[in-house]
Parts: sequence; C-alpha cells; structure tokens
Amino acid sequence: VFVLGIDPGLSRCGYCVLEAPAANARDRAARAVALGVIRTPPDAAVHLRLAELQNELRDLMAEYSPSALAVERVLFQVNVRTAMSVGQASGIAMAEAVNAGCDVVEYSPNEVKSAVAGWGGADKAQVQTMVQTLLGLPTPPHPPDAADAAALALCHLAMAPMREAARRATARSEMSA
Amino acid sequence: VFVLGIDPGLSRCGYCVLEAPAANARDRAARAVALGVIRTPPDAAVHLRLAELQNELRDLMAEYSPSALAVERVLFQVNVRTAMSVGQASGIAMAEAVNAGCDVVEYSPNEVKSAVAGWGGADKAQVQTMVQTLLGLPTPPHPPDAADAAALALCHLAMAPMREAARRATARSEMSA
Repeated sequence: VFVLGIDPGLSRCGYCVLEAPAANARDRAARAVALGVIRTPPDAAVHLRLAELQNELRDLMAEYSPSALAVERVLFQVNVRTAMSVGQASGIAMAEAVNAGCDVVEYSPNEVKSAVAGWGGADKAQVQTMVQTLLGLPTPPHPPDAADAAALALCHLAMAPMREAARRATARSEMSA
Repeated sequence: VFVLGIDPGLSRCGYCVLEAPAANARDRAARAVALGVIRTPPDAAVHLRLAELQNELRDLMAEYSPSALAVERVLFQVNVRTAMSVGQASGIAMAEAVNAGCDVVEYSPNEVKSAVAGWGGADKAQVQTMVQTLLGLPTPPHPPDAADAAALALCHLAMAPMREAARRATARSEMSA
C-alpha cells in the first residue's frame, strides 16, 4: 500500500511516496519509494506552470497508484500571493487524486509536527531530522518541501489506525441505530 | 471561435461560453452559447467538491473546445479562506484549460469592468446590466458569478485585437532584429 504526501506549491511542490509496512511485518518502518520536489520554470506564465504541475502529479499517481493522498490543510498564510499559489497547487493535487481513485486527507501543520517530531512547535530542521530517522535515510531530505511531504505521509500512516477505528465505530453505531 | 470566461469559486463557479462574431459579420455582437454557474454540494468534503468541479469544467471544455479561457486575476482577497478556495478553483480551471489546448489569459477586475462598463469602479449591478445589453439577453444574468464570467469573456473579446496587434509587432521586431 502506497501513501502519497504532497506539500503543495508552485515553485517547489514537495512529494513523497511511502510504502506502508505490512501489518505482520517484524520491521514496522515505512519505506520511501519516491521523494523529491516538482519544480516549474519561475519565468513561465502561471497557467503553464500549473498545467505542468498537473501533468507531473498525474504521472506520479499513475506510477504508484497511492491509496491515499496526505496534503497540508492550509489554515493561514501571511502572504496573499503565496496563499493563492498554494491554493492553486493544492486544488490541482486534490482534484487529480480524487479522480485517480485516491482517498484524500488533510492534516494541519501542527498535526504533522506532532506526529513526526512529538510536538506541534517543532521547527523545519527538527522535522527534517525526524523524517531522516523514521525513514532510515542517509541524509535529511532536502529541500524542506520534500521533508514536509514525507512528514505528511508519515503523519497519515500514524493516524490511519485511529481513523480506521473511528470509521468502524461509526459504521457499527449506524448499523445498530 | 469560442471564448470561455470563468469566475472561479468553490460554492459557485461562474462560466460563460461566447461565440466571437465573425470578422466580416454585419452584426458584431458576441453570442452567449452557455451561461451559468457550477455548484458543488457545500456539505461535501473540499477534495470531493474540487474533483467534481474539475470534471464539470473538463466536460464544458470538451463540449465547446474554446480557443481561450479568460479568468480573473485574483490580486487581493480580504478573507484568507476565500483566497484559498478561489485559488484552488482557479488553479484547476487554468491547468485543465492548458491541457485542453486552450490559451489562458488573466484579467484584473478593473480591466473587466473597464471593458464592459466603461470604468473600473462599476458595481455588480452595472456589470450585470451591461452584460445583458452587450449579449442581448432578456434579463440580467443571475447569479452575479455568471455575469462576471460573461464579463470576463467579453473583456477578452474586446482586448483580443490589441493583444494580437502587440503579438504581431513583437514578431516583426524580432524578425528584423
């Protein structure tokens, strides 16, 4: 089972495909099968960059058929220009994922940091180090956008059992209602 | 030749397909062949709504094969939440258009109002009335998102000759350089 983490952005869109550990595996570590950033030419028109990003994301999803996309829930961006391009990139990623048959789950930056670094106030360097440790990588993932994408996918794997339990409990209570 | 105007949004995404008047036509008015809003269920998850919007926009572009998409350049949104969902919707619209072989042109709200109502400070009601007049519609387009999409497409048709002249002048100066 593959999980795709995406840190959406137009200049650098971080991505990470993790292979979830088998339920009966002795070694319970997830394995990174793809990790990096999609860059689009900064001097090109925005619409051409967005189309390129859409194609790259579509190729990535076609290659790995992830069962879930974990993406950052953008709650607040100081800069409106940044909010717009993060929104444009995340919108494309989410629509592509749904239309590729992928579940989509959004996590807040705090949820992600808590899941991978143990507390919501962790800084970028701490997240990079924890991602390196959890995935057994030789060096911290670089740039930070790639590490953030990996952290999102790791957060999803950490949360998945709880989400599944909640889903089952809801289904049970609906059946007995 | 068809031009598609889109007023991007998640709750209501305005759209308008205009047929450009033939260059030698006696009657130089554009004709609206499609005009309305795409709505997605407000109680559904954002990613499902974005995927639905993507599919609706793709169908619209497949049906009319517009040569150009005119979309609002979002310069400033007071509300960050609104900026995010407008960004998500506009990103999807622009990427879909490019990948459907469509030219994409962004216009600022001021450019649109100047083109259809004669001045950049026109209000929504004035834009609706001018769109009704210019397209010879029996009533003002409703809701305003549909009128805004029509105004974007009208703005593009008004600007196209100037854009084309500028493009030719650039090509000439490059050839003679």
